Order: sequence, then structure tokens, then C-alpha cells
Amino acid sequence: MSRVLLSHGAGGREMAELIRRVFLASYGPPGFTGDDSAALALEAGPLAFTTDSFVVDPIFFPGGDIGRLAVAGTVNDLLTAAARPLALSASFILEEGLPLSTLTEIATSMAETARESGVAIVTGDTKVVPRGSADQIFITTSGVGQIVRPGVSGAGLRPGDRLILTGSIGDHGMAVLLAREGLLAGEDIVSDAAPLTEIVLRLLESGCELHAMRDPTRGGIAAVLNEMARQSGVCVEIEESLVPVKPGVAAACEALGLDVFQVANEGKMLIAVPAREAEAALALVRQCRYGEQAQLIGEVKSAPAGRVQLLTRLGTTRFLAPPSGELLPRIC
Amino acid sequence: MSRVLLSHGAGGREMAELIRRVFLASYGPPGFTGDDSAALALEAGPLAFTTDSFVVDPIFFPGGDIGRLAVAGTVNDLLTAAARPLALSASFILEEGLPLSTLTEIATSMAETARESGVAIVTGDTKVVPRGSADQIFITTSGVGQIVRPGVSGAGLRPGDRLILTGSIGDHGMAVLLAREGLLAGEDIVSDAAPLTEIVLRLLESGCELHAMRDPTRGGIAAVLNEMARQSGVCVEIEESLVPVKPGVAAACEALGLDVFQVANEGKMLIAVPAREAEAALALVRQCRYGEQAQLIGEVKSAPAGRVQLLTRLGTTRFLAPPSGELLPRIC
Repeated sequence: MSRVLLSHGAGGREMAELIRRVFLASYGPPGFTGDDSAALALEAGPLAFTTDSFVVDPIFFPGGDIGRLAVAGTVNDLLTAAARPLALSASFILEEGLPLSTLTEIATSMAETARESGVAIVTGDTKVVPRGSADQIFITTSGVGQIVRPGVSGAGLRPGDRLILTGSIGDHGMAVLLAREGLLAGEDIVSDAAPLTEIVLRLLESGCELHAMRDPTRGGIAAVLNEMARQSGVCVEIEESLVPVKPGVAAACEALGLDVFQVANEGKMLIAVPAREAEAALALVRQCRYGEQAQLIGEVKSAPAGRVQLLTRLGTTRFLAPPSGELLPRIC
Repeated sequence: MSRVLLSHGAGGREMAELIRRVFLASYGPPGFTGDDSAALALEAGPLAFTTDSFVVDPIFFPGGDIGRLAVAGTVNDLLTAAARPLALSASFILEEGLPLSTLTEIATSMAETARESGVAIVTGDTKVVPRGSADQIFITTSGVGQIVRPGVSGAGLRPGDRLILTGSIGDHGMAVLLAREGLLAGEDIVSDAAPLTEIVLRLLESGCELHAMRDPTRGGIAAVLNEMARQSGVCVEIEESLVPVKPGVAAACEALGLDVFQVANEGKMLIAVPAREAEAALALVRQCRYGEQAQLIGEVKSAPAGRVQLLTRLGTTRFLAPPSGELLPRIC
């Protein structure tokens, strides 16, 4: 068997074989057993629960693949709730004819990213649809995590807070777009897809007061900062010159007429802390993997409530609007 | 806006509007908030965690739709682990151009089925792919539940156990197949898609000793009984004349050359109990919604281990083999 067949999704012998040879071999026991439902031991306390589907095109791109994205994305969503990721599920919709070697490569990448995240893939599902009814492979991951600091959300910004951004923006969206369109190859633009477990758990363990966290994925930091400002009833003010953008990404955005503030990230976090904690928190983030380039990019004011103000490199101030329209389809 | 657009999946204004108008309106607060991650209050104790993707074609069929299926399927998977369903996530992959009225109808059906199941849809995600990259709508649901009786699994069969089947087999698979092919319309063949919360929770609350539970979906009772026999290292013996099959379903299977034992169910449970509990458990199941037609269909022997024996209507005995091959694609 070298390609995915309809029989691999039919609930019979072939499906059992696929689970054994691909998923059990990649994820491995004891976490993953191949059962329909997994049993998790938990401490008492609130649980975070999240889900995301991944339909990225192409499925392999500089810096990652759909599997790494599917694991890191759901891990990061748990982290934004100040939760320690406990377990993931992974459900596949496969197009008949997908090479099994491709599926195995993706499952291996998921297992590696899960290990890096300190989490196990414990249960899953596989459906196969006839050729032409889906595009190669779609993955939905869900995650559960133990909330270690209740109440951290996008709505927690307070006037006076400082905003930490854990690194450069626009890398993921541009890497996928350029790979898909075959544009500007060689520009060394690489997805940032990564699990941010170390950054968030070390901040939580340090006792640092955290008011809000969000990962700026679809719609970029423009979408997420606007949501945070609106949910919190505050104004977010950021300084353009403080927001890290890699030169290649900046050039590609300019060439394609894209606003880098609206381009998706898959390994970045926006973290709001009280001013008195800002320098210590920044120093801690910079010690962590994927946080070396972190910056303080702005602060929270009380008015105009619900808006994001950008201090531009020219010294002017403008509102950073929430994105609308098509942006970039199938970026995650 | 009357159709799903790529912008509905892009993370900007249109996506926020879709979440508000379709998902928040259907599922409703307080359970569903539209946030990336939901926080659940839990009692201490083991947690069940499960996921399934749904790609059924057609998306509406006699007796249900893809939304009802997606909720009932995940609820039933939690129940097989002897867990009280607590919360569901729902992630959508939508084809550009899907009528929003269709999406709303499906979300409404999901909300109704969730209410019937005693569970809330608390979080979700939406991706939109260009026309032709997916077939209308795929849904992945995940669920968490509090395990009220640890250790109930497909591997728990013991010699002497009796097997309860909660109703007739083959209804779902045949309803979907006939709807898809436009065959035998008017035969009153209706999907059994339903959440079995009442049956399982009442059995658990009664204190009845339960050795194993499984819901016979893809691959039918032939697949699930073989798995249970293999995992438990026992022989399952069932009597053909005791297995309820509706006349229309039996006739359609015969006409199409299908083995009804291999046809999918979406609202049935196989429950193994010790012989001394069998009559009381059966009486209790029959008092419950979706359990009125329950039957004792067989018993568990020690040998030949890992096999399923069928006592036929002709008085002969044959092995019921696990299914293989394509069976029926896109049945769930």
C-alpha cells in the first residue's frame, strides 16, 4: 500500500492497519493508543479546551508543514489561556490517492512538534474522501490544558500595561504565500511555526503578573490588537519602529502590496504585563527558545477605547484598522 | 451576504460577523463565547477526550444531517468510555460558495442535538477553502467528558457476559447510501443518528455492572464485535434471529448485495453486562429514548478467542469476519 485508499477510512482491516503503521508508529504509546477515546488524569481545577482546523496550501513550506502547524497552533491557543498543554487530538480528512509517505512525513512532524511542546497526541480519527472532494489533507487538532492562572484572556488589558511581542511578524504568511505562488524563492523567508510552551510556562512560573496573551495568527497583529483593544475597552498604542520585521519579509510585503501587520504569524505571542514587570518579563522571554528577538512594542492607554494607534516611522500617528476582505486564503 | 466567502475564514471583520450571526446565534452563550479557547470547570477525576471528523455525503439525509451526526457521534464516543459528556468543540472546513442558510441550518441542528445530549458547544474554528478544494462542508467535533466509571472499554468482555444491542442495525448507512444514489426512495429507511446519553447515564446511575461498551459506527457491528473479541481475548457469539433489522433495511441490503452486519449505525450501542444483570439492564435500556427496541443478542465465551460466531437463522454457525475493502465511503 503506497497511497491512501477509500478503504483506509472505512472502519475495517485497512483502517486498523493505517492506524498501526502510520499513527501508532509516529505518535507512539503510551500517550496514543489508537482508541476512539483517551482517558486523561487531571488535577482539580479549570480546564482549557480549544480546536483548530488546518487547510494550508502548500502542505510543505519553508520552515514547516501542515502537521507542525496543526500541533503548534493548538498548543499556542492553550497557552494563551495560561494553560499547561496536556493532550492533543488529531483528526485527518484525506483525499484518496495521497501518498502514504506524505502522510507519514506529516505524522512524524506532528509527533516531533508535540514532543517539543511537552504534550502527547492521545486520540484521533481518519476519514478518506474520493479524489477531488478535498485537497490532499486537512487536519483538525483539539487540545486540553490545565489552566494554571485563571482569568488571563484577550480582555485583560489595563491602561499602563506594556506589550511584549516575542519576535518578528509576517514570517509565516509570507513563507506560505511565496511557496504557493512560486514567487521570490531564495529570499530566505521562513515560517515561524513553533510551539511557545517554554516562553509562556516560564513566565507563569516566574510569578510575573500577566494581564493578557494572544497569538497573532490569521489577520496578523492588526486583527489581534484590535480585538484585544475592543474586548478590554482600552486603546493600544504601538510604535512601528519597535515592531521587528525581517528585511526580506518587509520587501516581499511591499512588492506584493500587503500590510505586514495583517500577515499571519504561527509562532509569536503578544503579552501584556504591568509596566513595573515589563523589563523583567522581556528579559525572561529573551532567554527562551523562539523569544530571543522579543521587543516591547507599545503600551495601553485608556482612550480612544477600542482602537489601535500606530506611531509611524515618520513620526505621525494613525489608527491601525482591523483587517477585512480576503487577505490570504489557506494560510493555516 | 448569502454565501460563504473566502473572507469568512480570513480572521478579519467578516469572520467575526460569521461567528456572531451563525455560531453565537445558534449555540448561544453562556456555553459558547466565540473565544479561541474555552475554560471548563471540572470535578477531580479522569477525563475522557475524543475527536471525529464528519464528511458525510449528502449533508442532509432522511433522519438527520451532518451537524446532528457530528454532535451525536462525539457524544456517543464519550459515552462508550463511561463518561458524562461535558463540552464539545466544533471546527468547520467550508467550501467557498456554500449558502449561509445551509450553514445556519446545520449549526441549528448541532445546537439542538447538543441540547438533547445535555452538553454545550463551547469553542470552535472556521476555515474556508476555494471552490473545488473541499466538498461543501466538513465538520470535526471533539469532546471532553468526566469519566464516572473508570475502566469500561472495548477490552472488558468476560466469558459469561451478555450482549445488549440498543436497537436495529444498518439504518444510518442505508439511509445515507440510498439518499446519495437516489435509490429506493420512499422505502422509509431513516438514519438512527442520535445521542445515547440517557441510556448510558441511566445505566451508570443504576449501579449496573458494565464490562464493555462500543458504538458500532463505520464497519457496523461486524467491525466492532471483532475488535471487542480481539481486544478482550474472548469469543463473542451472537444469534442472527435476535439482531433487530428493519424490513426495508434488510431488503435494501439484499438488493444491493451488502451485509447488514457491516453497515454503519449512528445511534446504537453494544453493551456487555454480567449474565445476572442482563434482564434488569435490558429493561432499563428499553425505558430510555432510543432504547425501546433493545435486545439481548448473544453472549461471551472463552474460545475461540478473538473470533465472532454467528448462529444463523438456518441453525448453522459461521464466523462473522471483520469487514475489509471499501465498504461505503463518506457514510459519516
